[in-house]
Amino acid sequence: MSEYSIGVDLGGTNLRAAAVSREGKMLNKVSGATPAGTGREALIADIVRSIETIQGSLARGPEGHELQGIGVGIPGIILMEKGILVGAPNLPELVDYPVRDEIEKRLGKRVTLENDANVAALGEKWMGAGRDVEDLILLTLGTGVGGGIVLGGRVHHGYLGMAAELGHLTVVPNGNPCGCGSLGCLEQYASASAVAGMARMLSLGRDLSAEDVFELAQGGNTRARQIFETVGTSLGIAIGNLINVFNAPLYLLGGGVAAAWDQFAPALLAEVSRRSYIYRAQPPRIERAALGSDAGLYGAASLGFQRR
Amino acid sequence: MSEYSIGVDLGGTNLRAAAVSREGKMLNKVSGATPAGTGREALIADIVRSIETIQGSLARGPEGHELQGIGVGIPGIILMEKGILVGAPNLPELVDYPVRDEIEKRLGKRVTLENDANVAALGEKWMGAGRDVEDLILLTLGTGVGGGIVLGGRVHHGYLGMAAELGHLTVVPNGNPCGCGSLGCLEQYASASAVAGMARMLSLGRDLSAEDVFELAQGGNTRARQIFETVGTSLGIAIGNLINVFNAPLYLLGGGVAAAWDQFAPALLAEVSRRSYIYRAQPPRIERAALGSDAGLYGAASLGFQRR
Repeated sequence: MSEYSIGVDLGGTNLRAAAVSREGKMLNKVSGATPAGTGREALIADIVRSIETIQGSLARGPEGHELQGIGVGIPGIILMEKGILVGAPNLPELVDYPVRDEIEKRLGKRVTLENDANVAALGEKWMGAGRDVEDLILLTLGTGVGGGIVLGGRVHHGYLGMAAELGHLTVVPNGNPCGCGSLGCLEQYASASAVAGMARMLSLGRDLSAEDVFELAQGGNTRARQIFETVGTSLGIAIGNLINVFNAPLYLLGGGVAAAWDQFAPALLAEVSRRSYIYRAQPPRIERAALGSDAGLYGAASLGFQRR
Repeated sequence: MSEYSIGVDLGGTNLRAAAVSREGKMLNKVSGATPAGTGREALIADIVRSIETIQGSLARGPEGHELQGIGVGIPGIILMEKGILVGAPNLPELVDYPVRDEIEKRLGKRVTLENDANVAALGEKWMGAGRDVEDLILLTLGTGVGGGIVLGGRVHHGYLGMAAELGHLTVVPNGNPCGCGSLGCLEQYASASAVAGMARMLSLGRDLSAEDVFELAQGGNTRARQIFETVGTSLGIAIGNLINVFNAPLYLLGGGVAAAWDQFAPALLAEVSRRSYIYRAQPPRIERAALGSDAGLYGAASLGFQRR
């Protein structure tokens, strides 16, 4: 009888789920489109269905796997004790609704909800770039910039579950206005939207994606390179601060924009070195996350093995 | 038989020690000048003597107190496992010397070394403003700006013991050069030296102390008030970032400049509110530390009760 857990990664566009063994082996994976905008019932039903699909496939196997628990990663702010979302810009239908209890009721299994960046950080700690450390900080560079902080092998939640809003670290005190109400947040300089926005500002092109800008930079385009230099410098200020705060051994960059590592890393490392004498005294690792979009699945699954 | 611990606060100018009961009652306190610059032997001998004086006074009492352990707060970076200082600008004679083992050998008692801002944070957690919380962040605004981070009731050290260098958070990316090699560190805007420096810059006076500038501000002097507005704004950027990172329930300001609270707090709170939507969602406490210069004594003593 081998034990496994199911991790669900509920994104604004994709709903994915995977079974992972206690040893960290991914046994099965399903994915589909998130039925966002069709109401809360359709969403919950789809989550439950994806879990049941996986359960079914493993039950049919010859090995007799035993489900230990279920973890669900969601892009939003979660009241951990209650299993309720209090903020989720991409999934507003789930806010203030007992998401955890509802899934538990339908499946008869223990469920843990966790913020998407936090599960990605946990996944990297368990089976990715952070296997050898107890503390790590992850920045996810996607449409926005998210953060996950793992200390002593566990997520640091803060007293209200709102910790690690690393996309809203100030990097340019009087810089671009941010949706959060502040000015010059990291998210305004290092997200995919920021890269696209800077491309418009620099008349590089009207509808370029962050990926397009990366291609241009790789081809030698000066303005595109300048954009990634800004990405790197901004990340360097933020990570320099995080090093001075945490003195952690590992800082990871995930999300789509992290693929442009070669373009922004030189400026990032130069800035961190200037900002943090702790970095100069003994440089911690600063790296791309290792598991890509599977990090969230591993991390969510790891929660299924934890006692609440 | 009542149990007690001895806390030592070794500053650049003062050497103080106190006996504290397990219940947090200060039983005895001695203080004198730190014999800095007279060599390591004089320093160690003085630390040992101050501890023996306290031990002697309690042994002579009728109650038969029993010493549990000794904690020593030192302004420097400490390798916790080895009990050795690797950096201490104000006490260079103690760097790379087995301070802990040497004191232990002479007293035959268990000794724990800890950074001075960390012991102050621990003291506030134990018997000061942080009695009711598990997580708190302390900023000490003295000649420089130090920091102490308490998570789950214990100091967050980081993997090399260099965490919480909060005076070197960037608050003005291209601001005043800092001794650490960076630009625009918090310490350049919110320390006593920074206040005195700004007074010179604004031709307020050549040799004014931070206290003098505070008196002028209290009397209505516009430039002096402007200086404390800068202090508050800089602290607001830094504390806004710390709130977005930690979501802790309590942020404390200690050290001499914290006495100017009434002058800088309005700008600080306005800036934090602008920088952190987490603050606006549910404001944590931001306050002056409660124990003044005794915080370090309480915190150092608390280490004497901890198992290593």
